[in-house]
Amino acid sequence: MLNIAVAGLGRMGKRHVATLLNRVTRARVVAACSMAPHETEWARANKDYIDFGIKVYDSYEDMLNHPGLQAVWISTSTDVHASQTIKAVEKGLHVLCEKPLSTDLNEVSAAIAAAKSRPDLKVMAGFSRRFDASYRDAYQKVKSNIIGDAYLVRSNTCDLLDETGFFVAYAKRNGGIFVDCTIHDIDLALWFMDSPAPKSCFAVGTLKHHPELAESNDVDNGVGVVEFYGGKIAYFHASRTQAHGHDVCTDISGTQGKVMVNVIPKANNVVVADKTGMRHEVQPEYWQRFEDAFATEAQEFVTSVLEGKEVPVPLESGFLVMKIGRALQESLLTGKVVKFDEQGRRIDE
Amino acid sequence: MLNIAVAGLGRMGKRHVATLLNRVTRARVVAACSMAPHETEWARANKDYIDFGIKVYDSYEDMLNHPGLQAVWISTSTDVHASQTIKAVEKGLHVLCEKPLSTDLNEVSAAIAAAKSRPDLKVMAGFSRRFDASYRDAYQKVKSNIIGDAYLVRSNTCDLLDETGFFVAYAKRNGGIFVDCTIHDIDLALWFMDSPAPKSCFAVGTLKHHPELAESNDVDNGVGVVEFYGGKIAYFHASRTQAHGHDVCTDISGTQGKVMVNVIPKANNVVVADKTGMRHEVQPEYWQRFEDAFATEAQEFVTSVLEGKEVPVPLESGFLVMKIGRALQESLLTGKVVKFDEQGRRIDE
Amino acid sequence: MLNIAVAGLGRMGKRHVATLLNRVTRARVVAACSMAPHETEWARANKDYIDFGIKVYDSYEDMLNHPGLQAVWISTSTDVHASQTIKAVEKGLHVLCEKPLSTDLNEVSAAIAAAKSRPDLKVMAGFSRRFDASYRDAYQKVKSNIIGDAYLVRSNTCDLLDETGFFVAYAKRNGGIFVDCTIHDIDLALWFMDSPAPKSCFAVGTLKHHPELAESNDVDNGVGVVEFYGGKIAYFHASRTQAHGHDVCTDISGTQGKVMVNVIPKANNVVVADKTGMRHEVQPEYWQRFEDAFATEAQEFVTSVLEGKEVPVPLESGFLVMKIGRALQESLLTGKVVKFDEQGRRIDE
Amino acid sequence: MLNIAVAGLGRMGKRHVATLLNRVTRARVVAACSMAPHETEWARANKDYIDFGIKVYDSYEDMLNHPGLQAVWISTSTDVHASQTIKAVEKGLHVLCEKPLSTDLNEVSAAIAAAKSRPDLKVMAGFSRRFDASYRDAYQKVKSNIIGDAYLVRSNTCDLLDETGFFVAYAKRNGGIFVDCTIHDIDLALWFMDSPAPKSCFAVGTLKHHPELAESNDVDNGVGVVEFYGGKIAYFHASRTQAHGHDVCTDISGTQGKVMVNVIPKANNVVVADKTGMRHEVQPEYWQRFEDAFATEAQEFVTSVLEGKEVPVPLESGFLVMKIGRALQESLLTGKVVKFDEQGRRIDE
Repeated sequence: MLNIAVAGLGRMGKRHVATLLNRVTRARVVAACSMAPHETEWARANKDYIDFGIKVYDSYEDMLNHPGLQAVWISTSTDVHASQTIKAVEKGLHVLCEKPLSTDLNEVSAAIAAAKSRPDLKVMAGFSRRFDASYRDAYQKVKSNIIGDAYLVRSNTCDLLDETGFFVAYAKRNGGIFVDCTIHDIDLALWFMDSPAPKSCFAVGTLKHHPELAESNDVDNGVGVVEFYGGKIAYFHASRTQAHGHDVCTDISGTQGKVMVNVIPKANNVVVADKTGMRHEVQPEYWQRFEDAFATEAQEFVTSVLEGKEVPVPLESGFLVMKIGRALQESLLTGKVVKFDEQGRRIDE
Repeated sequence: MLNIAVAGLGRMGKRHVATLLNRVTRARVVAACSMAPHETEWARANKDYIDFGIKVYDSYEDMLNHPGLQAVWISTSTDVHASQTIKAVEKGLHVLCEKPLSTDLNEVSAAIAAAKSRPDLKVMAGFSRRFDASYRDAYQKVKSNIIGDAYLVRSNTCDLLDETGFFVAYAKRNGGIFVDCTIHDIDLALWFMDSPAPKSCFAVGTLKHHPELAESNDVDNGVGVVEFYGGKIAYFHASRTQAHGHDVCTDISGTQGKVMVNVIPKANNVVVADKTGMRHEVQPEYWQRFEDAFATEAQEFVTSVLEGKEVPVPLESGFLVMKIGRALQESLLTGKVVKFDEQGRRIDE
Repeated sequence: MLNIAVAGLGRMGKRHVATLLNRVTRARVVAACSMAPHETEWARANKDYIDFGIKVYDSYEDMLNHPGLQAVWISTSTDVHASQTIKAVEKGLHVLCEKPLSTDLNEVSAAIAAAKSRPDLKVMAGFSRRFDASYRDAYQKVKSNIIGDAYLVRSNTCDLLDETGFFVAYAKRNGGIFVDCTIHDIDLALWFMDSPAPKSCFAVGTLKHHPELAESNDVDNGVGVVEFYGGKIAYFHASRTQAHGHDVCTDISGTQGKVMVNVIPKANNVVVADKTGMRHEVQPEYWQRFEDAFATEAQEFVTSVLEGKEVPVPLESGFLVMKIGRALQESLLTGKVVKFDEQGRRIDE
Repeated sequence: MLNIAVAGLGRMGKRHVATLLNRVTRARVVAACSMAPHETEWARANKDYIDFGIKVYDSYEDMLNHPGLQAVWISTSTDVHASQTIKAVEKGLHVLCEKPLSTDLNEVSAAIAAAKSRPDLKVMAGFSRRFDASYRDAYQKVKSNIIGDAYLVRSNTCDLLDETGFFVAYAKRNGGIFVDCTIHDIDLALWFMDSPAPKSCFAVGTLKHHPELAESNDVDNGVGVVEFYGGKIAYFHASRTQAHGHDVCTDISGTQGKVMVNVIPKANNVVVADKTGMRHEVQPEYWQRFEDAFATEAQEFVTSVLEGKEVPVPLESGFLVMKIGRALQESLLTGKVVKFDEQGRRIDE
């Protein structure tokens, strides 16, 4: 059994606690923390937290000192991911850190360096899509060469329009749409095409529902293109404004065929036929789409610690992803192409 | 060029004239007839009929004497199909007769005998689905053995609910739902499974929207099962009451696989994603689904006459189809299984 | 926490133990049993059984005496379901019994009577499909009246062809295809249409891959029709011989529309486009299709016991289902329609 | 009846003759021409050309003098489209000119000016997709405002890999992939979004199967992005190398929803279920996808001439399309963003 704590009790932190309780047999949730009083109050009054003896802390640092603690799942806001990862590593704890590691590349590097300094610890990046059954099946198919050489990836992360204000409040610190949303798609593109070196990045965007994002130099819909050395290409659409649900799809084109993931999103197997024709519903948000992936992610992290295996997604895989995400975000702002040489150095024209 | 006339100027007759004008280059429509004054008046005032010199008759018999006439497309009501076919054959005319040939098996036999007596004439049964590109592709696939031995057919003919009263007015003389609708499905089952001999027929039904059909011993939804000698089975659903459109589908199961035709009906390639999810429309009636099939049917009939080829669907193929359709309709009424021996004789238990 | 034991360590029994360990937080698996030495040996050597202290018994009766045991999940062969349910109830244990309760209607009645004699115990029938997210969504939609009055159900249970011999070995005691497979579809039809009284049952079948089933008067493909009082109809296709996977679908037709469940089965969200066109895979068996449903079933059973709620599927719901399943199986053998009056008494003509 | 001639007897020219003969009742094909002897020989020996008295010319100019000629359908190679259009207009003939009008913007302007100088003549641009039933339905839906304000279009033109060498031979004079393929997608984007002014164009590409295209500065796969003034965006994927067929799809995103056209291409309504799962075929080339659209295009052109109506796609609609196509092709070569001010003037940074 692995003694694990969850940092952050926002929407996802609560879900991670539930996942660990209900889907990860060999993990024991011993602690959780939040700096938001309404979250800690909620947790302290919650039957599950009481029954399973989960100690709720107001401070991340205090939680790290919980007796017997072995691992932390960091699910706080992006701006503290890197520093919290470093602190946990310094305490000798295993870490599963939610994406993105940081919006600052230097912080990303520092966290990666910290992890490398402690090879005895398992430090994993939380790119949840890599644990989704469909993406894994697609990956196996691509790696078994059924589509030849994979050279082009299209990948979208399009969220249901949030009319509650939750998203906009949260948007200020997320690094922009290409860092917050497209980062998953970039990770997938690199995963499916064997991490080619980026050559040029270009992006455009628009504001259709959330004009207030202009203040933080962001958009609510963006389209980005990445050209890689070696004749590979990725392109992305990220949106905050979908009417129909959470629409995340990926096409991987190869020289002999194409593998498509979730091109027609469906909430379940139900179709209704009535006067309007035939219709099906779509998942409202990524949780319904990726709930099982989060469970698999947690199970595999726990197994990698308990059985001393490699983590499925090493922390350093987050570096190139973030570099491309930030280049797209920069291009969105400047209207210019961001270029790199083959060694990854910026080319300023 | 083939000089052809169309008998009947109801909904389908008008469409057949248009098909011949617009889609059958080597046919010349020289005449049409109807006993309904509002139909002949409409035709005589119609620009196409005037421009292309289509003579409009009030009597079928008069039309048969039209100078130079070579062929007739019979699209009148079912109760005169057989007698009109016989009359045309007696005049030495080629015939394309809409299904069903008759609701009376003796009439069917008489028409087939008439056709056989004139092997120089092309006399064809109008089972339009056999000319549909998808059904033909399915047929080629089944015949090329990709699903092994075809042993089970499910086939549905489910019409959009007609709230205009048109259908009910028309229903009195159509022989019942299994004769009027399911006849297409029976034809397909026999076609795909090489015309096995029926062993038993059973059907049930219900009245959900058209209670007035009870007077003519009919239902607005029926389910029928046919067991054939040789371990083959067909089953059918016919409906007059669909909310979403014209839903006609067929599955052909074989020992090594299954071929499915139109299991998810779609009016076109358009999908709308909005707050209700994702939806597509469905064809409102069989014309939108089978318009191209009717054009192919007409083209092939004309070609078979002009080039002296076999007709693609000989008239006699309508006999066994009707026998099964009537057995299902009988079972619907009596609640009993209608059984046949291997020679096709009724077995009364 | 509920102390629960699993009876039977065949394919499904092992899965149920795993489900309870990994998906049901508030259950503690304390014991399991099997009369098959290779199964008990396997379990005694299994890391999970050892780590979680699951006591493995060679006898069901001995297991019932396990100290502190509160509930039993019966996953043995059908012929002992009823007697084991009765024994557990007599010991004062809560029971979740896999379908079908028995192939003998008297045994079914006896088990139901036993359950009724102990209203303090939760005794539940394991109709797993009722716990599937899609079927539940369909049920909510039907009950919220979006398709009007539900009057017709089509439901199929079509299994992947088993070439290992496992199925045939197991088939001898399962009561026949309409009892073993179609029972789920009958349950769904009754659920969606509010348990109408059956009026007539008719079935036909064929043997395409497993001729040895003829010995036990069974078929490997069957089609059955049930007419209910009140103008409702259900029809079914059961197959043991599918090439493409486990294909279970259900259409519920109502006066204003239709709800369709899993009409195009898909293993996941992946589509491959290559020289053959576009394709997706299908689940190989019901486990992949219904794994989550089994977890929900277990969770709800445990919750109903711990919180003293009604069980979601009372044991008596298995009676009418079995009566119809056996009538279809009888019709398959005799070629005759099996009829009932509105009180459920057989009408012999 | 309209006397019409077809210029060009290559693959498409022959199809246009057949379309006019078989699908356009009120057109009479009186002449055709080609400068390729094997094409004129083929035509002179062809039964249809003989039967219907189609005069076959070796010279376009000679054909224009055909007695009684009223209209020309120009289906030659792109480099002569503009000059042939001008010559026909000068002869007082109506013109339907295949896309693109030219790869040279000055030539495009000259042809448009010629057409404007003769307002009595119908001069139409052949953007065939605008005549496709699905695109028209999508257009009606967008214009009826069911998705709110349309602000983003994704559109792909992806061709089946041509292994015959036909495509490469033809590629030298087509202006590049964004001019030859994407031009349709650009036209659709402008059509659906009300012709917004382009602001910036960026494109990348790769060579995967046809390295010989490098000589003509072209690629076999390209991705392009166009940002428009007013917060609108379009992005495109063009490919010559698909394994599965002709895959042309378009998504139109609006503030309240999305309309999708042909996202899952299907050759017909047939699905095969076998050991590989479930699959359907895809149209091999654009002809199978757009055959009906070409018929509608021809019918509407003929009707516009005979009835003196506006042509559905005026020639000048080709100008902005080509300007964007050429900007994308330029960006592909230079790696730079091509920018325009709101009046359409190039901005050189």
